[in-house]
Amino acid sequence: MPHSQHSSYSSGKSEIPTAAFSRRAEAAGGPPIANVLMAEALAHPEVISLAAGFVEHDSLPVEEVAAAVQSMLSRRDVALSSLQYGSTIGFPPLRQAIVDRLAAAEGRSPSELAASMERVVITAGSNQLLYLILDTLLDPGDIVLCGSPTYFVFLGIVQNLRGCAVGIEIDAEGMIPEALEERLAWLARRGELDRVKAIYIASYCDNPTGITLAEPRRPKLVDIAKRWSRGNLIRIVEDAAYRDLQCGDVRPYSLRSYDDGGCVALLGTFSKSFSPGIRVGWGLLPSDLLLPVLALKGNLDFGSPQFNQMLVYTALENGALDSHAEGLRRRYHEKIQVTAAALEESLRPIIPIQYVQPAGGLYVWVHLPPDFDTGIDGDFFRACVREGVLYLPGESCFPNEENGVPRNCIRISYSMPSPERLRQGIAALGRAARRTRSGMPGSSTKR
Amino acid sequence: MPHSQHSSYSSGKSEIPTAAFSRRAEAAGGPPIANVLMAEALAHPEVISLAAGFVEHDSLPVEEVAAAVQSMLSRRDVALSSLQYGSTIGFPPLRQAIVDRLAAAEGRSPSELAASMERVVITAGSNQLLYLILDTLLDPGDIVLCGSPTYFVFLGIVQNLRGCAVGIEIDAEGMIPEALEERLAWLARRGELDRVKAIYIASYCDNPTGITLAEPRRPKLVDIAKRWSRGNLIRIVEDAAYRDLQCGDVRPYSLRSYDDGGCVALLGTFSKSFSPGIRVGWGLLPSDLLLPVLALKGNLDFGSPQFNQMLVYTALENGALDSHAEGLRRRYHEKIQVTAAALEESLRPIIPIQYVQPAGGLYVWVHLPPDFDTGIDGDFFRACVREGVLYLPGESCFPNEENGVPRNCIRISYSMPSPERLRQGIAALGRAARRTRSGMPGSSTKR
Repeated sequence: MPHSQHSSYSSGKSEIPTAAFSRRAEAAGGPPIANVLMAEALAHPEVISLAAGFVEHDSLPVEEVAAAVQSMLSRRDVALSSLQYGSTIGFPPLRQAIVDRLAAAEGRSPSELAASMERVVITAGSNQLLYLILDTLLDPGDIVLCGSPTYFVFLGIVQNLRGCAVGIEIDAEGMIPEALEERLAWLARRGELDRVKAIYIASYCDNPTGITLAEPRRPKLVDIAKRWSRGNLIRIVEDAAYRDLQCGDVRPYSLRSYDDGGCVALLGTFSKSFSPGIRVGWGLLPSDLLLPVLALKGNLDFGSPQFNQMLVYTALENGALDSHAEGLRRRYHEKIQVTAAALEESLRPIIPIQYVQPAGGLYVWVHLPPDFDTGIDGDFFRACVREGVLYLPGESCFPNEENGVPRNCIRISYSMPSPERLRQGIAALGRAARRTRSGMPGSSTKR
Repeated sequence: MPHSQHSSYSSGKSEIPTAAFSRRAEAAGGPPIANVLMAEALAHPEVISLAAGFVEHDSLPVEEVAAAVQSMLSRRDVALSSLQYGSTIGFPPLRQAIVDRLAAAEGRSPSELAASMERVVITAGSNQLLYLILDTLLDPGDIVLCGSPTYFVFLGIVQNLRGCAVGIEIDAEGMIPEALEERLAWLARRGELDRVKAIYIASYCDNPTGITLAEPRRPKLVDIAKRWSRGNLIRIVEDAAYRDLQCGDVRPYSLRSYDDGGCVALLGTFSKSFSPGIRVGWGLLPSDLLLPVLALKGNLDFGSPQFNQMLVYTALENGALDSHAEGLRRRYHEKIQVTAAALEESLRPIIPIQYVQPAGGLYVWVHLPPDFDTGIDGDFFRACVREGVLYLPGESCFPNEENGVPRNCIRISYSMPSPERLRQGIAALGRAARRTRSGMPGSSTKR
């Protein structure tokens, strides 16, 4: 963001004062591409958006929220508490319920997990906590390792903090442990190991790839982080935002479950499984990380809204949240099937594509042929807008790479459209691919 | 926060890795004193807390919130929207309603104010926006001018950002324009004017002093900020968090109303006048400040919870919010009378005191004799805890001063206790003062 000239004040001075922003603000750049795409989707409801990372709209828990609010407000002491300030760390019963729920998912007791409510903080979605943790760990120039591609808001945060996101190769099973180890060895040889503060891993139905990190890799990655913690600790920031949307029977334990609690910060949220408009996230943190994170959150907002925390707690306690999440998993599972079938039917006959069918979450990541430029200024994107469909250009999901980043990937979000609209949207992708290919010289490149 | 030693991992290495936090996190220090006092108050309900900056508990708007939620959730399209993601800048109808309400308070049209919803952002209380603006403006070492004393969370934010808060003398009418000008001239002589990025002014019923900035000073302060904007713009960050709690007939226009919109960022909130548990704040920003603030907020939390924004909008539209605020002003006005009477009856007979009776808000700021140390480790504080009352020590509200800060002030928050408990709490202050004085050698010092 360049320093902008500002209209002169009526001070009669010849010098024109300019707006000076902090180096952080200059680093932050404009609004993330998702905001642009979200705004576009909201402005053009006739276009089928496979871009926005919204959760499914029609299944949002209206009745569950109404019941929870009614329950909260019908007891005057509870009602008054819900409307008052709370503590920065968050509503204690909710934090206890989160520990209990986590322990159940891991098949172990809280003490076996070294987990307790004292280490749990409630935040505005897990995203706020991701920001708080990275702000707590990173000085300008410091390094966070991450999958390549990775969550683009994570990249925005690191850029904002003037840190450096370094990509690690992934495959269909997620981050490749050997690639992580090689990168750490390379950084050590360059004398940069002390700058590595964290490894960011979205361990369930990753955004953007939809990939769930394979179970055998989990203890390996934790082990690597610990072994390479020499001058300073290298934390794993495990983002489990999509864990509750993991369909099917294979639901691996968290990376956190392979740790004693000193290395891995585990982040979760009820935004995806319940309601992003209520926006309650949480984290189970290494104890030494808790105090600086709380100091920062105390300055930022004192704590998340008590009303929302008590609402989510009520929906957890009465079972509404978990049964709602179960219903969502069924619905998303169906949409994944629809998406895969439509990709096979409408896109693969036009161009060769590669993708991993996700086990849940909100996204499918599709590789188009290497000669396709899926960027927002490219032919394919323009053809898609013309055919009435939006996607998230893959290029926004890559950390800076020495050799440039792939420009032929797209992220499809299947959550918002109905199955029928999904099919139509993917058919539009197919038409746009045909249009792009036909307009391209030498369109025979194969992967 | 010192680097802490961390238990060694099972890597067999002789070096023990340590937790390295960012310089910002190190600067943030522990949780603010208010958190400590809040926690103490919650843990000891028998102690009368005149410390916590909570709003009055019993008058929180339970019925109003219930009605607003019912109204929102009874229309399915509205209900679904309230549970979905919104935009980073905030819910448009709420932003428009804020502009209209502001224009009414200023007695001018939105266009006369150069105010429009495009410049309004919704945040997690006005506090989050204070953080976002300061993060956007301050590099380490940069200066913000502020009253002395000032809002201690503001001081925590500046410390967190590694900036420098420089105090300006205040009197019973708020910040003294001549003192501001002298300080700017002094900074200019030292070549530090370019480091001055903002002036922070809580313009209505200030926290901690309860003072409302006198009307004639408002245009003067805006003029000074503009005249001294040479190398770079000096913004006024006007915190109007307590404006809706300003009782009585004298309700001065904002500093923003004396500006064309390029200098003053005006911050407001519905936390005090409606519910801190819902936590919806807002800001009307200079247009060039809007984009960097939104970029930061986008990375931090994407936007404030849609549910809460729509709830507040509903309560604004149906009139519940304004009639609730009117009722609060009556109640707080009564408590101010009770507080002043109790100070005269129970404290002044024991020790000489000075205070300005506030026109609203939540606080009275009391000067005790100069030989009283009101700090958390001092005799008076201990005597107060023993007598069953808590206050906020004044020393936490001062920026660092070359000649040290006054240690004989206390902030009394009259909002939470009932009138009866208020009288009891202030009587306990009197007993503690007597106890402290009697234990002190040479207790005849007068102000």
